[in-house]
Amino acid sequence: MIEVAVLGATGTVGQRFIQLLEKHPWFRVAEVAASERSVGRAYAEACHWLLATPMPEPIAQLTVKPLDAEFHAPVIMSALPSEVALTLEPELAKRGHLVSSNTSAHRLAEDVPLLLPEINAEHVQLVSAQRRKRGYSGALVTMSNCTTVPVAVALAPLRPFGIQQVQVVSLQAISGSGYPGVASFDIFDNILPYIQGEEEKVEREPLKILGALTEDQIVPLRATLSASCNRVPVLDGHTVVVSVKFERKPSLEAIREAWQAFQPHPLAQNLPSLPESVLIYNEGADRPQPRLDRDNGHGMATTIGRLRACNVLDVKFVALSHNTVRGAAGGAILNAELLIAQGFAQHLRLPSAQHGRA
Amino acid sequence: MIEVAVLGATGTVGQRFIQLLEKHPWFRVAEVAASERSVGRAYAEACHWLLATPMPEPIAQLTVKPLDAEFHAPVIMSALPSEVALTLEPELAKRGHLVSSNTSAHRLAEDVPLLLPEINAEHVQLVSAQRRKRGYSGALVTMSNCTTVPVAVALAPLRPFGIQQVQVVSLQAISGSGYPGVASFDIFDNILPYIQGEEEKVEREPLKILGALTEDQIVPLRATLSASCNRVPVLDGHTVVVSVKFERKPSLEAIREAWQAFQPHPLAQNLPSLPESVLIYNEGADRPQPRLDRDNGHGMATTIGRLRACNVLDVKFVALSHNTVRGAAGGAILNAELLIAQGFAQHLRLPSAQHGRA
Amino acid sequence: MIEVAVLGATGTVGQRFIQLLEKHPWFRVAEVAASERSVGRAYAEACHWLLATPMPEPIAQLTVKPLDAEFHAPVIMSALPSEVALTLEPELAKRGHLVSSNTSAHRLAEDVPLLLPEINAEHVQLVSAQRRKRGYSGALVTMSNCTTVPVAVALAPLRPFGIQQVQVVSLQAISGSGYPGVASFDIFDNILPYIQGEEEKVEREPLKILGALTEDQIVPLRATLSASCNRVPVLDGHTVVVSVKFERKPSLEAIREAWQAFQPHPLAQNLPSLPESVLIYNEGADRPQPRLDRDNGHGMATTIGRLRACNVLDVKFVALSHNTVRGAAGGAILNAELLIAQGFAQHLRLPSAQHGRA
Amino acid sequence: MIEVAVLGATGTVGQRFIQLLEKHPWFRVAEVAASERSVGRAYAEACHWLLATPMPEPIAQLTVKPLDAEFHAPVIMSALPSEVALTLEPELAKRGHLVSSNTSAHRLAEDVPLLLPEINAEHVQLVSAQRRKRGYSGALVTMSNCTTVPVAVALAPLRPFGIQQVQVVSLQAISGSGYPGVASFDIFDNILPYIQGEEEKVEREPLKILGALTEDQIVPLRATLSASCNRVPVLDGHTVVVSVKFERKPSLEAIREAWQAFQPHPLAQNLPSLPESVLIYNEGADRPQPRLDRDNGHGMATTIGRLRACNVLDVKFVALSHNTVRGAAGGAILNAELLIAQGFAQHLRLPSAQHGRA
Repeated sequence: MIEVAVLGATGTVGQRFIQLLEKHPWFRVAEVAASERSVGRAYAEACHWLLATPMPEPIAQLTVKPLDAEFHAPVIMSALPSEVALTLEPELAKRGHLVSSNTSAHRLAEDVPLLLPEINAEHVQLVSAQRRKRGYSGALVTMSNCTTVPVAVALAPLRPFGIQQVQVVSLQAISGSGYPGVASFDIFDNILPYIQGEEEKVEREPLKILGALTEDQIVPLRATLSASCNRVPVLDGHTVVVSVKFERKPSLEAIREAWQAFQPHPLAQNLPSLPESVLIYNEGADRPQPRLDRDNGHGMATTIGRLRACNVLDVKFVALSHNTVRGAAGGAILNAELLIAQGFAQHLRLPSAQHGRA
Repeated sequence: MIEVAVLGATGTVGQRFIQLLEKHPWFRVAEVAASERSVGRAYAEACHWLLATPMPEPIAQLTVKPLDAEFHAPVIMSALPSEVALTLEPELAKRGHLVSSNTSAHRLAEDVPLLLPEINAEHVQLVSAQRRKRGYSGALVTMSNCTTVPVAVALAPLRPFGIQQVQVVSLQAISGSGYPGVASFDIFDNILPYIQGEEEKVEREPLKILGALTEDQIVPLRATLSASCNRVPVLDGHTVVVSVKFERKPSLEAIREAWQAFQPHPLAQNLPSLPESVLIYNEGADRPQPRLDRDNGHGMATTIGRLRACNVLDVKFVALSHNTVRGAAGGAILNAELLIAQGFAQHLRLPSAQHGRA
Repeated sequence: MIEVAVLGATGTVGQRFIQLLEKHPWFRVAEVAASERSVGRAYAEACHWLLATPMPEPIAQLTVKPLDAEFHAPVIMSALPSEVALTLEPELAKRGHLVSSNTSAHRLAEDVPLLLPEINAEHVQLVSAQRRKRGYSGALVTMSNCTTVPVAVALAPLRPFGIQQVQVVSLQAISGSGYPGVASFDIFDNILPYIQGEEEKVEREPLKILGALTEDQIVPLRATLSASCNRVPVLDGHTVVVSVKFERKPSLEAIREAWQAFQPHPLAQNLPSLPESVLIYNEGADRPQPRLDRDNGHGMATTIGRLRACNVLDVKFVALSHNTVRGAAGGAILNAELLIAQGFAQHLRLPSAQHGRA
Repeated sequence: MIEVAVLGATGTVGQRFIQLLEKHPWFRVAEVAASERSVGRAYAEACHWLLATPMPEPIAQLTVKPLDAEFHAPVIMSALPSEVALTLEPELAKRGHLVSSNTSAHRLAEDVPLLLPEINAEHVQLVSAQRRKRGYSGALVTMSNCTTVPVAVALAPLRPFGIQQVQVVSLQAISGSGYPGVASFDIFDNILPYIQGEEEKVEREPLKILGALTEDQIVPLRATLSASCNRVPVLDGHTVVVSVKFERKPSLEAIREAWQAFQPHPLAQNLPSLPESVLIYNEGADRPQPRLDRDNGHGMATTIGRLRACNVLDVKFVALSHNTVRGAAGGAILNAELLIAQGFAQHLRLPSAQHGRA
């Protein structure tokens, strides 16, 4: 088993890391770290556990470490606030850790892969350039914004038609705002038509994810995205309503076939967190729905539905992913699996490097 | 006081009619009619009252009439199911009633005005052609679909810039589904990304509303709309996320000014149900919000916010109207007021025609 | 595998039966039956599937049978409406089926066991008297009302202290109202302080469940219950706030120990649907909570918390069970398991009796 | 007009004060004060306005004062945190202000009236003793906990039957937790069966409110209360499920009559904030309901329903009050009105005492 340290372990994404890693075939949570007020306490006491499955016993007894600790675990899952991640994640990669980050701080950096392995697993090769340029013995890879996921997964199989323009309106779940996150008084019987910083992320990240890997960098997809992001009173599951214009407008049938024929990237196919189907097209007239479809593929699948013609662009559809599983912790775990499977754990210069040889 | 008959009086829109007419300066509910199972019972017993203000005493004691009754009231507010309205509303107009309908059955008929008086009050003149062609002594005017309202009101002041393309994604309240309407089990912690027949209405109705009146007909606005309609767990208030492309792309400032300078149509300006401001631009970063803005102008105002550039079309914004007030009963009352104010109640050949002379 | 017919298969409880039996070690759903409008259609078409896991493939293709069909399956799970169950369930037991019912129709009949096997598995012996008196070759056993479960499970270990008076206030989930069940407009941002027929059930059923088996009948617990039942905007999980007065008032510590020492009835201990812990005492200051605790023990555990002194009676606490799993389909499956385990499937005179020999 | 200072003006109760005082016939908000981070800013900027009616224009422009300012207004409405109120409210009363507090800090102090004027307006006379003992030229009166209101109002007319024991289970709205208050992630699809410090308040406050005034103090009602308090996903309106045991058990009819005959205390009858009916008995089988009944009497009425026999105590019923109107700001305004009407504003030694002469 490869030991993992979870950073930002008491927050909502940190808790998801711990939940999802409980029975992981490769990884074992060996260290937890969090901000000052939790340091030195047992995880069970420091953490206000919010999930519906019980806190795993072995983790409950771990002592929370400070964020600047020397970590023994070769693999680090980071759910750090962006401002902390900015300097700490590179530092950890330099010290030899494989850092799989769920934070926005480094997503758009030129030599940092922004990975949705089912789509762009080959981008992980950017780590070689990263190591060369930055002198890392470890690595830093990033997971996208949670709303980016259903957009990027739905668009990936449509690249052959020449994606030109994309309109996205999101209906995002409250769990995406962290904890305590959005106040109940604000979202109850209400819509919040604004989420700070979100639209910018959704407009840029899919282009990098869907981009092409050259030797040293990613050439982003040449398309234009416009995003309008809304918070809705739903617990989990981000829904996106998408319209697309193509260079070579395909028939609806061709699009449906592209989705149904979609196979995850070969490099990703045996990763333990990859679900049987990463992209599900549901023919139901009123699907996808967050409560019914967010847990598809153990929360790792993207569900699409309602494909039809658009009067303004070419086609429109609805897509949905679980925002704290596929869109956060589950995604970062998948990224770490890819790093391991691609051999990036070799030669880690860490105190506990012996654990790192998968 | 002008007597009014409410048809479909026990449903959610029927109840709103009765609530909103309780203290109306011109109208008095004198008759209520509903489907067979309610006929002959006191309104208080036939109706499962759903509103948070008490059922008005005088109405509680009215006996529910059958839909095919001879009505004495010169003005009829119709919240009938579409299939019933199809033949009954023309029949009532023929018999001499001023029928203000909230039903979709006749909205797109060539000689039936589809009125949002603050925008297109002059369309009421179509009634003259209607009377001539159809031989009505009464009249039939219609209120739009509830989701059409915020779209049409927001776009109306922007017509000078040449509206070309409009993308609409709606987040619609559960009260729009009637009663019992959407099951709690379906909408709880959920989004329903489909509302039967809704997208077609939202794609067509604004074009007629924003169209130009010629002698005998309306020339629709030449623009293209695409709508994606979603049900969300909000009680009242339909939110629309809108992107627009113009012939002559205006600055954001010019659009904001157009909204702020907007004045309701002169023919509508003294109607009792018209609010002080029919269009409110809220500068707040996260407005409009249904719970905070749906009751603006006693539920008769449309609130707009978040105007900004769109990467795909030209600009995007969010708009909101109360779906069962401005978007249904309140709108139909406003339409009836316009008919009265424009003198269409003259010469009504009705048993109670003396009440009809406003 | 023992074949099972599910009656009322398209409703919410019927769907739960099918979901929970998907991977059952003993049972296999072989027949589904429902009311007239579903008969003859494939289950996938007849059923508006409401659960978050996909409809099991083999069931999707079953043709829905009429309720008065000849069933081959020796075991019948009934989620019938009470008025249908009244005559049909006895008829099926007479024909030789083991009928495990979730309906209220026969719960209080003298020779029909009302089973929560973790508590009163020995009541299943009443089936011998039932067969003798009624001439059944099959059997009829019943599952309690969903709100009864947390009350009965929490009280069972406290019987040694002499339960005298019990006050119950329930906060019940919307899934308990079936489908379409409670209208979203009624329960949204609201409490419904009345559920038809519910309080009577909660006041009587626990007394029979907690009663003593004599040769031919159950002597109910001699205690007094008072129930106030409320519908709240929660999806799944019924919460009960309970106050109890005892003959011999125990210390809080003694009660906590009684709960912690509680072992399921010996006859129930190896049943496949029995969870590891049937009764969990959660020490958290604010537990149990429906969203966090309803799925404990795969939805089959009852979670208790907040034990403290009551100024009026002796003690008070909060208890919670999943209403459509432990409180309905899961409970009826457990009852059927008990029937099989206790040998009541022997000598079934059925066309498919060969399947019935467990 | 009498000038009023609102303390804690930016919080949820502070905002309600400002909303409810907008068109008050006697009072005018002249000063607003809040904690350090708001001091010196315009109220419009310091306050995240949460109510559905617009912030009153004149208040928006007031500069927020520090809590330790010299206030000119003779009347002070306090929505302070308890720990601040502890010393500041007495200090202000000493300086000559009439302090109407919504805080728990002084509610149970021997010489501080805990007022629900419709019930116990005569308790205001305790202010004379208070002034004598404490040397106040002003006065300090308090408003009860929000959950206390429906309990106390429902019980008040039943005192003649000899109230002995009362069981209360509350279902409390999220607005009662302040802002940001309960996190959406905690209360969404959930019940929180614990509210810190609440049960103690509900068990004690009604006894003082329903107590008898002697010369210098209140003799509490001799009865026993037990409370179980729960947070539910409802925006506004606290529901209480109540069981009562009496010395002289009345018929249900006698109780209903006592409620229907109930008249507000003579000293309270002409206060502007007193609604037409302070206690409404709703005969509906499923009433009161928070969304339908919380705004009765402009949010100042208590609605009761479901009176029936209790198997354990004598009778049970359900009662409901608006928690931030009747149960907080509206109540404190009513208390201030009583102080004015009873002449306690005479001879105020304040810089602005000329405003204080009503």
